[in-house]
Amino acid sequence: MNEKIKEILSWYKNENPGTIRNLYNILMHGKLGGTGKMVILPVDQGFEHGPARSFAPNPDGYDPVYHVKLAIDAGLNAHAAPLGSIQTIAREYAGQIPLILKANSNEALSRNPDPIPAVTASVEDALRLGCAAIGFTIYPGSINFKQMYEEIREIALEAKRNGLVVVIWSYPRGSSLSKEGETAVDVVAYAAQIAAQLGAHLIKVKPPTDHIELEEARKVYEKYNIPVGTLAERVRHVVQSAFDGKRIVIFSGGPAKGREEVIEEIKQIKEGGGFGSIIGRNSFQRPKEEALDFLNEILKIYMEC
Amino acid sequence: MNEKIKEILSWYKNENPGTIRNLYNILMHGKLGGTGKMVILPVDQGFEHGPARSFAPNPDGYDPVYHVKLAIDAGLNAHAAPLGSIQTIAREYAGQIPLILKANSNEALSRNPDPIPAVTASVEDALRLGCAAIGFTIYPGSINFKQMYEEIREIALEAKRNGLVVVIWSYPRGSSLSKEGETAVDVVAYAAQIAAQLGAHLIKVKPPTDHIELEEARKVYEKYNIPVGTLAERVRHVVQSAFDGKRIVIFSGGPAKGREEVIEEIKQIKEGGGFGSIIGRNSFQRPKEEALDFLNEILKIYMEC
Amino acid sequence: MNEKIKEILSWYKNENPGTIRNLYNILMHGKLGGTGKMVILPVDQGFEHGPARSFAPNPDGYDPVYHVKLAIDAGLNAHAAPLGSIQTIAREYAGQIPLILKANSNEALSRNPDPIPAVTASVEDALRLGCAAIGFTIYPGSINFKQMYEEIREIALEAKRNGLVVVIWSYPRGSSLSKEGETAVDVVAYAAQIAAQLGAHLIKVKPPTDHIELEEARKVYEKYNIPVGTLAERVRHVVQSAFDGKRIVIFSGGPAKGREEVIEEIKQIKEGGGFGSIIGRNSFQRPKEEALDFLNEILKIYMEC
Amino acid sequence: MNEKIKEILSWYKNENPGTIRNLYNILMHGKLGGTGKMVILPVDQGFEHGPARSFAPNPDGYDPVYHVKLAIDAGLNAHAAPLGSIQTIAREYAGQIPLILKANSNEALSRNPDPIPAVTASVEDALRLGCAAIGFTIYPGSINFKQMYEEIREIALEAKRNGLVVVIWSYPRGSSLSKEGETAVDVVAYAAQIAAQLGAHLIKVKPPTDHIELEEARKVYEKYNIPVGTLAERVRHVVQSAFDGKRIVIFSGGPAKGREEVIEEIKQIKEGGGFGSIIGRNSFQRPKEEALDFLNEILKIYMEC
Amino acid sequence: MNEKIKEILSWYKNENPGTIRNLYNILMHGKLGGTGKMVILPVDQGFEHGPARSFAPNPDGYDPVYHVKLAIDAGLNAHAAPLGSIQTIAREYAGQIPLILKANSNEALSRNPDPIPAVTASVEDALRLGCAAIGFTIYPGSINFKQMYEEIREIALEAKRNGLVVVIWSYPRGSSLSKEGETAVDVVAYAAQIAAQLGAHLIKVKPPTDHIELEEARKVYEKYNIPVGTLAERVRHVVQSAFDGKRIVIFSGGPAKGREEVIEEIKQIKEGGGFGSIIGRNSFQRPKEEALDFLNEILKIYMEC
Repeated sequence: MNEKIKEILSWYKNENPGTIRNLYNILMHGKLGGTGKMVILPVDQGFEHGPARSFAPNPDGYDPVYHVKLAIDAGLNAHAAPLGSIQTIAREYAGQIPLILKANSNEALSRNPDPIPAVTASVEDALRLGCAAIGFTIYPGSINFKQMYEEIREIALEAKRNGLVVVIWSYPRGSSLSKEGETAVDVVAYAAQIAAQLGAHLIKVKPPTDHIELEEARKVYEKYNIPVGTLAERVRHVVQSAFDGKRIVIFSGGPAKGREEVIEEIKQIKEGGGFGSIIGRNSFQRPKEEALDFLNEILKIYMEC
Repeated sequence: MNEKIKEILSWYKNENPGTIRNLYNILMHGKLGGTGKMVILPVDQGFEHGPARSFAPNPDGYDPVYHVKLAIDAGLNAHAAPLGSIQTIAREYAGQIPLILKANSNEALSRNPDPIPAVTASVEDALRLGCAAIGFTIYPGSINFKQMYEEIREIALEAKRNGLVVVIWSYPRGSSLSKEGETAVDVVAYAAQIAAQLGAHLIKVKPPTDHIELEEARKVYEKYNIPVGTLAERVRHVVQSAFDGKRIVIFSGGPAKGREEVIEEIKQIKEGGGFGSIIGRNSFQRPKEEALDFLNEILKIYMEC
Repeated sequence: MNEKIKEILSWYKNENPGTIRNLYNILMHGKLGGTGKMVILPVDQGFEHGPARSFAPNPDGYDPVYHVKLAIDAGLNAHAAPLGSIQTIAREYAGQIPLILKANSNEALSRNPDPIPAVTASVEDALRLGCAAIGFTIYPGSINFKQMYEEIREIALEAKRNGLVVVIWSYPRGSSLSKEGETAVDVVAYAAQIAAQLGAHLIKVKPPTDHIELEEARKVYEKYNIPVGTLAERVRHVVQSAFDGKRIVIFSGGPAKGREEVIEEIKQIKEGGGFGSIIGRNSFQRPKEEALDFLNEILKIYMEC
Repeated sequence: MNEKIKEILSWYKNENPGTIRNLYNILMHGKLGGTGKMVILPVDQGFEHGPARSFAPNPDGYDPVYHVKLAIDAGLNAHAAPLGSIQTIAREYAGQIPLILKANSNEALSRNPDPIPAVTASVEDALRLGCAAIGFTIYPGSINFKQMYEEIREIALEAKRNGLVVVIWSYPRGSSLSKEGETAVDVVAYAAQIAAQLGAHLIKVKPPTDHIELEEARKVYEKYNIPVGTLAERVRHVVQSAFDGKRIVIFSGGPAKGREEVIEEIKQIKEGGGFGSIIGRNSFQRPKEEALDFLNEILKIYMEC
Repeated sequence: MNEKIKEILSWYKNENPGTIRNLYNILMHGKLGGTGKMVILPVDQGFEHGPARSFAPNPDGYDPVYHVKLAIDAGLNAHAAPLGSIQTIAREYAGQIPLILKANSNEALSRNPDPIPAVTASVEDALRLGCAAIGFTIYPGSINFKQMYEEIREIALEAKRNGLVVVIWSYPRGSSLSKEGETAVDVVAYAAQIAAQLGAHLIKVKPPTDHIELEEARKVYEKYNIPVGTLAERVRHVVQSAFDGKRIVIFSGGPAKGREEVIEEIKQIKEGGGFGSIIGRNSFQRPKEEALDFLNEILKIYMEC
């Protein structure tokens, strides 16, 4: 094991060997194996936004098999999806790439200003389907936070008992936050801290903007001159907010956008000490060859030392 | 086993042999046995709409025994009903036709714009009564979706542990949807995707109209020219939305209507690649001989290659 | 076993022998033993309406012992009461009359337009107290129906596992129903159907009036000319609505009234094919000798072939 | 065992010997031992009203040890208190007086017109701490009655399984009741009936006034001329309402008041057939010697035949 | 064991030896070991207020390792933190200082006038991570008090079963209380009483002001001339309110303030018989050397006899 991986694993030394093994598998898999960086393919948009909105741009994506193959062919570290998708591919691709079972999902057919996803899969599902990790979304800022944090407490405890890795998607939302505030740097940093305190091994947040949402926080950012002017600086602050960098924090890409824009974002994430990216719509909504080429470019950025 | 059945079963290869056996039984039973198509007789209308509204047109239907006999005599693939009805017929007709225990039901005596059915039977009931499957209704779009999805998560996990098939009735409803939106093609496709992600083996939806409900979806349907002009095209889109056709999606008939109208609908479902129909009021509200004749005509459509 | 009893038991043949034994005990007990008819003494009015309103007319009734003796002396089929009352008499009268433990009760001190009773006893209580059956009230039409139906699902399953009979009091109530609608013939028939579907062995409803509450139902009653002019006709329709007569449906008497009025009602219930009555206030609010005489007259009506 | 005690125990003969033993201990303990009467010292006012309001008049009472000693020294039948207090004294005074663990408590820092106490101790706590009984407060009339009654159902069942006595404090309260109605004679009698039906062995109510709260009840009290003019008559009516005297009903004293007033109340309770008193603030808010003297006077009243 | 420690442990003699051992460890650890006083370092502000607001003044504090080292180097009695932090340090610092796992936490991203924290860790977590105690926050005065008190009832029972110490942070808050009322002396004393009754071994409250919040309480404070003029007097009253001093009550420091101000507060707490302090932001927001010096000064105050 190289020093980088040894260092990362040292942050989790309280965990069972089962969990360490699965975390090691994710860290060592694919083209970024052993670099301490990771890129993950998440495909829960069919559930969260609807099938046509997710897959019409590249109809091959209606098939869950397409995604696991894409993740394998691109040499990514892991693939995350809800129960139904994982069920479809788990046996055939068992062992070929670490799988993250997304254990809760929201739907876009009803609206809730303080959203709370449905828990749609369990640790038992993850174990019987051979997954390496369980994934869970929390919405810090929702008045329903108590229920979500207690759900993940139970799922995380059971996951750790059984040697799984716990991945938390920490996406601030709720009636107390402005739309802009959902990606404000103070709020994203806070979201990373909460995920870390809830016991996550891997934390996924959105790239933060330079907006500051909370009045009490603004005073502190100004008084202590915390640098948040560039995305790299903000990424560095978010990573620091997750136990001073002792948790793996990765960043999502959001809605599909121009290739150059994404590449620039990745460079800044890397510069800021982010541990990697989770690239969904920006990969699977492109034709496969283009997606592979694009993902390769991203991986190369992370591979540079 | 013929190639068609082999292919269908291959989509479910992550499941226990117990579940595969029961799915196989349903696929091989009755006149459509081995075709990969299926027609099911569901009788939960006594609970959902009241007894007189359901059975007065053909009073034999007050007796649960009538329905199981009708399903057997017509050569259908399976019969679905709530606990009380299944209890009445389970011992006498054990083994003669696969039974689907409907595990939740709504009632029409109270009104809820965001409905949520009562869970009225359990996996233990299904097992002790010798059923092949458990049936469950979800209402995507209801603000109560979290509770329903979590109920089916638990029931489905227990069902799969015990070798049962999981059938989800996915009927969009709720205060965020217009009445027309409940059968809009984008909404029905979304409902099929959700049922698939929740781990359903069989999915039942309503035949979609060409209405598009959600603004974000409309843009996508227009941009990518998704064909939804004919029922056959819409059925094809819905089937595609359930893992690119790797889940068995069948279509309900709705309120009793003219024979020709139903037949035309069935032809379109077949042309669009639908896996079959679930025919309730359109069969049991007709006198038995007429119902048998009518169901036979439907079965013949599905039998044609 | 005579043919009548054999036929009735044949409707429940899916049940465990333990449940059949207890149902048989109820059917064979008292003066109506073996006739297929039954009269039951229920005393939960102290809980539901308060002690003085229930027992002041005949203060002997404050004592639970009075009621079990009355039921035994009158030769009734069974006695139903809440936990406290049953606890008081269970040991002393063990075996002398089948006991039905009323497992939930409402109180009259608070008002809820959509009532939901408290579950105040358990199957374990029924078993340790030697009861033959568990009794449960549902209020179809209450917006809280989901919770009630799920409570009885669990209690009924546990009861059947342990060889008890399940009795459902099905009393429509709720903010969507008019006061008149609570006893409307369409609503009472619907209530009987729901109780049957929930898995009840015995169903208790109120004698229906000729009012029709639901608009969609009215159309059907008119179109198919369902006869509901006399109480006998309405009773017949309600019994038909409970699996075409394959469930034991009995009728309650409601508030105390004139002797002639009750007798006339009983005659109509019998003529309509009802399986018997549950006579509470009309018996225990009369002095004991008068009550015995009155109950005897009722039993005689049911005994006539 | 004398005839009085034999008679009382005969009302509970359905219970396990463990429960009978604990009930016997309470009935035989202290100066009233064997008389069939009882006086209990309850100290939950620190939790319910705050420490200064409860203990400032006699600061020794801040210490839970003070109370158990007071109860022992006065020769009372039992001492009731919440978890923390019982934990403080259980080991040192084990066996010296029967202890009643108060399993739920309300607090006065927040206001709820339909109150519902927090369940703050369990049967397991009562068992590990060597208690003879579990105490539980219900508020009949609260719209939250369902939850309270179901909590006590579970706790009572577990208590009886494990040989404990069940004591219910039945205090009507809630938004449907007037302040005066909380102690109205019809309401207190109803509260006693509910506690009895919920399976209480000992019932504690407040001394009723001659107010009648419920319209339907008033008609009955007038029609049947139920005597409620004196406290003794009202106590008699309440005791009758608890299974015609077959449950031990005791009466609380309420806020501290003049000695003569309390003594007069006790005399009336005794005359009306009440089984005793539960004296809290009226004893522990007096200096110890005065309290002992005062309690002695009360005990003497109950000792007279 | 010296007399002071013997006396303190005597208040908890009903507990299992496992709990006594852990309490002994806390009492004997660090520079205050054996004095009967304690100072604890709590670090849950990252979760409760956000990372930048908590750690920007001294960025070393972003790392959970910094805090446990600070607590060890300063010779404190124990260190308290949420799950994620404890997970990070538990293995490396196992045995070097008693750890208190904070089992619930609030977040500042949403606002609730009647707050209720999320339960984010369990007794199983505390045991597997080698903690000596479980910490839990309650908000007396919140309309949600029932849920919080029931959560701690279950956690405390499980903790005691497994030999852990139970620490309750009792912070009055809620829509019935004024902002000033949250630290009013009557309210803080009440909060200490509630924590004691809920079974806490260690109670943490805020230093009370001389404000009196509740009308009924004010009358009592005036009538009995309870001295609350100085902080020392108020501390004495609060300690008295926790079983007359038979529970360990410690006081928090609140937001960072001037050194002199804190020192003066500590002196008064000591003079009033408080058992110690819990010093968070006032220590970790200072540079380490300054914090160690400052904590040393505090410890010295408590060490003086």
